[in-house]
Amino acid sequence: MRNLTLLTDLYEITMGQGYFREGKHEEIAVFDIFFRPNKLITYSVAAGMEQAAQYLENLHFSEEDIAYLRSLRLFDEKFLAYLKNLRFTGDVYAVREGEIVFPYEPILTVKAPMVQAQLVETALLTFVNHQTLIASKSSKICAAAGGGVMEFGLRRAQGADAGVYGARAAVIGGCVSTSNVYAGKLFDIPVSGTMAHSWVMNFPSELEAFRAYARSFPDACLLLVDTYNTLKSGVPHAIEVFKELRAAGHEPKGIRLDSGDLAYLSKEARKMLDGAGFPDAIICASGDLDEYSIRSLKEQGAKIDSWGVGTKLITSADLPALGGVYKLAAVYENGVEIPKIKLSDTTEKITNPSFKEVWRIYDRKTDKAIADYITRAGERVDETKPLELYHPVERWKHMTVENFRVRNLREPLIVGGKRVAPVYSLKEISAYRAEEYARFWEEYTRQDMPHIYKVDLSEELYELKRAMVQESGKGA
Amino acid sequence: MRNLTLLTDLYEITMGQGYFREGKHEEIAVFDIFFRPNKLITYSVAAGMEQAAQYLENLHFSEEDIAYLRSLRLFDEKFLAYLKNLRFTGDVYAVREGEIVFPYEPILTVKAPMVQAQLVETALLTFVNHQTLIASKSSKICAAAGGGVMEFGLRRAQGADAGVYGARAAVIGGCVSTSNVYAGKLFDIPVSGTMAHSWVMNFPSELEAFRAYARSFPDACLLLVDTYNTLKSGVPHAIEVFKELRAAGHEPKGIRLDSGDLAYLSKEARKMLDGAGFPDAIICASGDLDEYSIRSLKEQGAKIDSWGVGTKLITSADLPALGGVYKLAAVYENGVEIPKIKLSDTTEKITNPSFKEVWRIYDRKTDKAIADYITRAGERVDETKPLELYHPVERWKHMTVENFRVRNLREPLIVGGKRVAPVYSLKEISAYRAEEYARFWEEYTRQDMPHIYKVDLSEELYELKRAMVQESGKGA
Repeated sequence: MRNLTLLTDLYEITMGQGYFREGKHEEIAVFDIFFRPNKLITYSVAAGMEQAAQYLENLHFSEEDIAYLRSLRLFDEKFLAYLKNLRFTGDVYAVREGEIVFPYEPILTVKAPMVQAQLVETALLTFVNHQTLIASKSSKICAAAGGGVMEFGLRRAQGADAGVYGARAAVIGGCVSTSNVYAGKLFDIPVSGTMAHSWVMNFPSELEAFRAYARSFPDACLLLVDTYNTLKSGVPHAIEVFKELRAAGHEPKGIRLDSGDLAYLSKEARKMLDGAGFPDAIICASGDLDEYSIRSLKEQGAKIDSWGVGTKLITSADLPALGGVYKLAAVYENGVEIPKIKLSDTTEKITNPSFKEVWRIYDRKTDKAIADYITRAGERVDETKPLELYHPVERWKHMTVENFRVRNLREPLIVGGKRVAPVYSLKEISAYRAEEYARFWEEYTRQDMPHIYKVDLSEELYELKRAMVQESGKGA
Repeated sequence: MRNLTLLTDLYEITMGQGYFREGKHEEIAVFDIFFRPNKLITYSVAAGMEQAAQYLENLHFSEEDIAYLRSLRLFDEKFLAYLKNLRFTGDVYAVREGEIVFPYEPILTVKAPMVQAQLVETALLTFVNHQTLIASKSSKICAAAGGGVMEFGLRRAQGADAGVYGARAAVIGGCVSTSNVYAGKLFDIPVSGTMAHSWVMNFPSELEAFRAYARSFPDACLLLVDTYNTLKSGVPHAIEVFKELRAAGHEPKGIRLDSGDLAYLSKEARKMLDGAGFPDAIICASGDLDEYSIRSLKEQGAKIDSWGVGTKLITSADLPALGGVYKLAAVYENGVEIPKIKLSDTTEKITNPSFKEVWRIYDRKTDKAIADYITRAGERVDETKPLELYHPVERWKHMTVENFRVRNLREPLIVGGKRVAPVYSLKEISAYRAEEYARFWEEYTRQDMPHIYKVDLSEELYELKRAMVQESGKGA
């Protein structure tokens, strides 16, 4: 495993030395990761917690790291000696990967000695921001396709990790396979892919290229049919080779379209394949796809069974950063919590103070999610009594829920520096996402004009926040 | 070094087995990496060649990789044994990192046995696409700022590699430092950063927070002044601490603004700092910056000395993928080149056939670049005779250049599998980029409505292409 301990912003370490010199380095601090609403993603699919946990368990500066820090002439030997022995000893509470999450919710909370909590900010944000972004984008694309989406984006990914962890996140969001062999091996993801245009160009004719491929992969024969002319040469040649394959006792897989009018071409190709006796040969499409173009193709009646999605998934092209933040929520003095709040002129940017819990409230009759509910840690949500939910800003909007069940959305991931949460397989994570996604009314998850899912604050938390805002500016 | 040999699309390996079985695996093929025009980037700054070279020199499947491939039940033992011994033995020609490059130019060409050339496609595209994209975005941002740009984006990067190689690419494009300590260590980049809002919130008052920081870093004291109220509390408190520092024999660095109206706040803060006797204290700004907002701030007369640019640089937010491709240009049969062309209904998408060279033509009087010129390998460009340049598509547009010098834009990076190009330091690469950038008229590099820089084909290459297009479709 790569040691990513230096994967942090310099200011985390300069602040670290500051806290160390002020004798504040062992004070316990609580930081929350959450994201704010954005125009494109109303719900998100959490991911990145697995890499976060591995990173935290492995946190340590090597001799070489310390030597590098020394070379910066910013840090003194006492502090460097302290860093050399630093390990992550704190607690982390986080939602499971695959959990459906919403703006303002603390999806990961770190409770740790100040220097540690500050040091790990950057890397935790990097992992959670990136992977949650791609899992969310994947979820939207897979919802539009209704299944059968293959992740094809490695060559357009922002570096190797973006390709590898992006492929994993894409599967969390609903993709069935990846073209990325490294990711396939690392995370046990089914891998897919057959041939490029260069294969077809490397034989004297398209027909010979197809025959050669069929010889090599008689039972996995999926042919790329658009190198020359899809309907006049590609599909007829594919059918010719499919017949030869069948005569030799093999069934073909199908064809791939990578350019042109995918709606028209797929419909025509479907007719040709069906007419030739290959109704089970699939049609796979690729080429600059995303949730919008897939929805449009389906509306046009395209006959596409399987979708290869590249650039726009692996980079989340229309929103390439989730913008999640890591904000101080509390410190402890002599074991007593001092809640902290970050003010802003923009109401939505004021943070929620205190060490918190997040609850999901489900209707017992429909088993559908009604709202999420943020409380201070230690508050109980009583399922036997009606619960009053308030809009977090516009308090005059409220509703009463009854006959509900409630679930703590987060689990302890790390306690005292040791991982305590189970390691879920990617299959389990993806299945969990599908199961939980089904508990949301389509009105919340649809692409166009979705309803905003409610994330409310408990009365106690709201009152604390209100009081702190009123007290505000005293520090200045 | 991580072994990234499996960082490839599955189809590269299935095609590999196909070529192996057809006895074509040792045939020499030539592939070019180039990108097409896009609305945002008219010129690009090449990067990623260093990681590409390291990857190629290190290419080998481990026992574990082979075992994984075997588990897919797609490959036979003969081919797996062949893969086990596979190393990269081909040649690579590439532009230097930092080179200013344009659409359609082969910025990296692989000439290698077919299976190798195909296997390395995906990873080479990943490295070159990503790093060229970020270096180019950085160049635009740095041009807008006129210097003093710090890369601050790690927490919003698409994974660790995107942060680390992105920081390196940002420096190639012109950034002076990064907040990313890992990248700082790996690539010897100056690192920058001081404090976050959480530091200020962790002390009883802003003034005490500033004093504590000054105690720890008396000679690197740059204070974040917007936690409460920038002009009413942040700047006055900073000035108070700066005076104390000076009384103790230290000069302050300056302040950082991270929110609000940066134009107004920076102008007011400048007056306050100047008035208090700190004209040398710098003002650093951060918060969702890019080339557009920086240009606007400068037009408004903002007094900002140093720019911390995060999300929009590290993700190239308005164009998160360069879209570079890797296209077959030729194969060799018995040592004789057979040029290859990929046709398309879109004229611009037809590839340029044959093993090629790229030349840059400079005016001897001004030392400015006039055009780039693509020839078949082996063609000579005679500086002593007038050269006729033709528009690559609209041939009736042409011009004659005289009194020019010409430079081969690419160098051998790898020959026979061994790296032959020098390893340039990041400082050298960035200096080279600055030097070459200065050889372009501003009309080509400006942000709004730039002229399109000419990239022409030699008469011989044009004629070859024309003839191949006419012959086209025969393969089908």
